[in-house]
Amino acid sequence: MMTLSKLDFTHVKRDDAEVDMVHEQTPFFDPVFRDKFDALVQWRRDVRRFKADLVDAAEIDQLIAQACLSPSVGNCQPWRFVLVNDPEMRAAVRDNFAHFNAEALAAYSNNRAALYARLKLAGLEAAPVQLAVFADPNTPYGHGLGRRTMPEMLQYSVVGAIQTLWLAARTRGLGVGWVSILDPELVNEALDVPATWRLIAYLCVGYPLEEHTDPELQRAGWQGRVDPAAFLFRR
Amino acid sequence: MMTLSKLDFTHVKRDDAEVDMVHEQTPFFDPVFRDKFDALVQWRRDVRRFKADLVDAAEIDQLIAQACLSPSVGNCQPWRFVLVNDPEMRAAVRDNFAHFNAEALAAYSNNRAALYARLKLAGLEAAPVQLAVFADPNTPYGHGLGRRTMPEMLQYSVVGAIQTLWLAARTRGLGVGWVSILDPELVNEALDVPATWRLIAYLCVGYPLEEHTDPELQRAGWQGRVDPAAFLFRR
Repeated sequence: MMTLSKLDFTHVKRDDAEVDMVHEQTPFFDPVFRDKFDALVQWRRDVRRFKADLVDAAEIDQLIAQACLSPSVGNCQPWRFVLVNDPEMRAAVRDNFAHFNAEALAAYSNNRAALYARLKLAGLEAAPVQLAVFADPNTPYGHGLGRRTMPEMLQYSVVGAIQTLWLAARTRGLGVGWVSILDPELVNEALDVPATWRLIAYLCVGYPLEEHTDPELQRAGWQGRVDPAAFLFRR
Repeated sequence: MMTLSKLDFTHVKRDDAEVDMVHEQTPFFDPVFRDKFDALVQWRRDVRRFKADLVDAAEIDQLIAQACLSPSVGNCQPWRFVLVNDPEMRAAVRDNFAHFNAEALAAYSNNRAALYARLKLAGLEAAPVQLAVFADPNTPYGHGLGRRTMPEMLQYSVVGAIQTLWLAARTRGLGVGWVSILDPELVNEALDVPATWRLIAYLCVGYPLEEHTDPELQRAGWQGRVDPAAFLFRR
């Protein structure tokens, strides 16, 4: 088992003896780890109910460092993380959510509207850490590689980093909630970030008040999970 | 520590005694697990060089089931996984890549073009498993929740699932490569999937020929990694 402090070796030539040598040093993820990783995936939730406990700033720095080890197209590292502590900025984001959540509610009718009205869709009032995550289309890295035919790979790279952060947070007992009921341009304005940056996610982070394996929207009767076999096609 | 076979309990009321009861049953991810998770994130790579070894079909089913535990906006589960085995369809995807990779090369000049020409950007000729992943904008689940102001949340949900699959694959010793140098509409045509589905990724999956902690594009001198501190802003 490779120890973390040794991870800076590299640059391996591609002949078989060298490859075997490298394989000896790479980590083997045994069945115990694989089962716990499976539990991690099962217990990751979109968290909207947070304890008041503060989160150590070093934890957040480490989470962001882990997220930055995610793949990005052409290694362009387009992720821009903005930690939002300013109370007025936080209030502007809450207002943004309240407005567009009311608009969303108005688009449903009858039972579905009643159900929507009862949902808790964000933890903006209580989350001790709030992290806006953007994609920078003018990222100075990567020389444009890999995004001529699919320019959206830029945004997708940021999403992958967020998913890594989400799982990494859960290993530390932290919960993450992704708020998408926001006008993204108003978020850019409120946080005073470049207009060219594209909002990917506004994340609420903190210690969760509850732990569940099933999505809140399933418990609330909004939408249950479907058998994965329904999503697999063969050609 | 909760065992996996017991994960089907849930539906917990929100009073403190019950919450405490649940907390006792949720998994605690200890420092040993957290370190190994960190190693997992560090050793995940975009893999373009595969061994000829076949992959057990059950492994792929399990990977997709794990991916389907990822978050999706409104729990709309928009992911559609297409396992591509047909040799003519695989050849069409290879041709698609070859054409648009040549076009990308032509857009660079001088040293950068020479460097680009030497890069290996896909493992399409050798990957034993090939998996096209789409987002279905007409997904019958989720009732549109959470994507009025940010409709791209549909695609982002699929990307999160792919990142989960990527890490889960690595726990099993499998490597994944994401090919984005493709005309996405031609992929839909070649694979005979609905024109409304949106290609998110064409994944090559198999046992990697090499293991590294640094991205191939860094080793090749195309683009190195940047200190994560450069990506963190405070407000």
